[in-house]
Amino acid sequence: MMNERHIMSAFDRDLETVQAMVVKMGGMVESAIHDAAIALETRDEELADQVRRRDKAVDELEAQINEEAARLIALRAPIATDLRTVLTVIKISGILERVGDYAKNIAKRSHVLVHMPAINGSGIALRRMTTTVEGMMKDALDAYIQRDPALATDVRNRDLEVDQMYNALFREFLTHMMEDPRNITACMHLHFIAKNIERVGDHATGIAEQVIYLATGQLPDESRPKSDAITRATLNEGED
Amino acid sequence: MMNERHIMSAFDRDLETVQAMVVKMGGMVESAIHDAAIALETRDEELADQVRRRDKAVDELEAQINEEAARLIALRAPIATDLRTVLTVIKISGILERVGDYAKNIAKRSHVLVHMPAINGSGIALRRMTTTVEGMMKDALDAYIQRDPALATDVRNRDLEVDQMYNALFREFLTHMMEDPRNITACMHLHFIAKNIERVGDHATGIAEQVIYLATGQLPDESRPKSDAITRATLNEGED
Repeated sequence: MMNERHIMSAFDRDLETVQAMVVKMGGMVESAIHDAAIALETRDEELADQVRRRDKAVDELEAQINEEAARLIALRAPIATDLRTVLTVIKISGILERVGDYAKNIAKRSHVLVHMPAINGSGIALRRMTTTVEGMMKDALDAYIQRDPALATDVRNRDLEVDQMYNALFREFLTHMMEDPRNITACMHLHFIAKNIERVGDHATGIAEQVIYLATGQLPDESRPKSDAITRATLNEGED
Repeated sequence: MMNERHIMSAFDRDLETVQAMVVKMGGMVESAIHDAAIALETRDEELADQVRRRDKAVDELEAQINEEAARLIALRAPIATDLRTVLTVIKISGILERVGDYAKNIAKRSHVLVHMPAINGSGIALRRMTTTVEGMMKDALDAYIQRDPALATDVRNRDLEVDQMYNALFREFLTHMMEDPRNITACMHLHFIAKNIERVGDHATGIAEQVIYLATGQLPDESRPKSDAITRATLNEGED
């Protein structure tokens, strides 16, 4: 969209500024999720503390982005697609703020898990899941900045993989709990962590859907691939 | 704010229209949460199905509210407080959409739980929690419509009670799981339901904070009362 204009308007310049803030926020949130997973796997309480403290800056940046977007609307009075673009900025920063909360929450739980028996293989499995959702988040933001609906659609498709990883972990935790009741509390916390990581994938998908909305004027319908069969043992919650 | 103007402007009329849509959406979401809890307690799969189907209308109403808010901004070019008020509409409808998803998710899990052993007392405890968060959600929306920061502060304070109910349930589920491994899967699902209801309380608090923001220009700081001590057994996640 922006490439079609040869002369950059005041609106475009302001939009670039606020979008740069969103990209910065995305980077902060990606490293928060990344570091939270490392802190969990290596039982590094100092790193977990850092992740928790850093979330304040993420929240502050969201507030700044909202202010800046409101200022832009008041000053430039954008209409049609331009207005929709600015409103999307607000949606996306709201999504990133929640992802930051998930990272903080994982860090909190890793303090608790340090005092519990380790659950075999869970650290690696959770980190693999984290790497996948980090990539989705990065690509979703790239798709937004480049206005690339094909990349956004790709992000959306990858969410199925994350749902499958989550379902496999859910079953694994159940097995550990049934084998030895001393694993129950640790598995409850690990399960929540797995769920939080799975939700990051959902949120990356949410950003991707905003990109598709910007490009086409419509949110994609229910055709999104989902591992949504309800069984008695697992329950996919991609729609949470 | 609106009462100070004796002649209603075109902006005010449009704002009333979109706020009426938000109130309608709030009502839909409240009954969804209510009915999901009843369906769970009474093992009523037909009602659970209804809750799941009704969520589509909630999602559609959110999209309409967003469109209407964008139209209002483009048409009336509000600034300062008026602009902030319209942006708050978008935030609140986004929150309500997520609460609708929680109701749908509870309904999904209640289908799964029908096939599992009942966990003593969980239905009543969950319904008590639901009643509390329903009241919070209702008051948060009333506070928004009335621009009543005192009522909003009251909603925020009540979230502590919900956190405590959640923590008590978490401990109870742990006990049931340790006593009998056959309870593990049911308790995992019930725990998620408890968590979803607790999150509804957080979201009502989020709406209350938007009301305080509208009234004072600032989001309330961290002074919010929280049951936030990390212990090895429970972990409050009011900040999720």
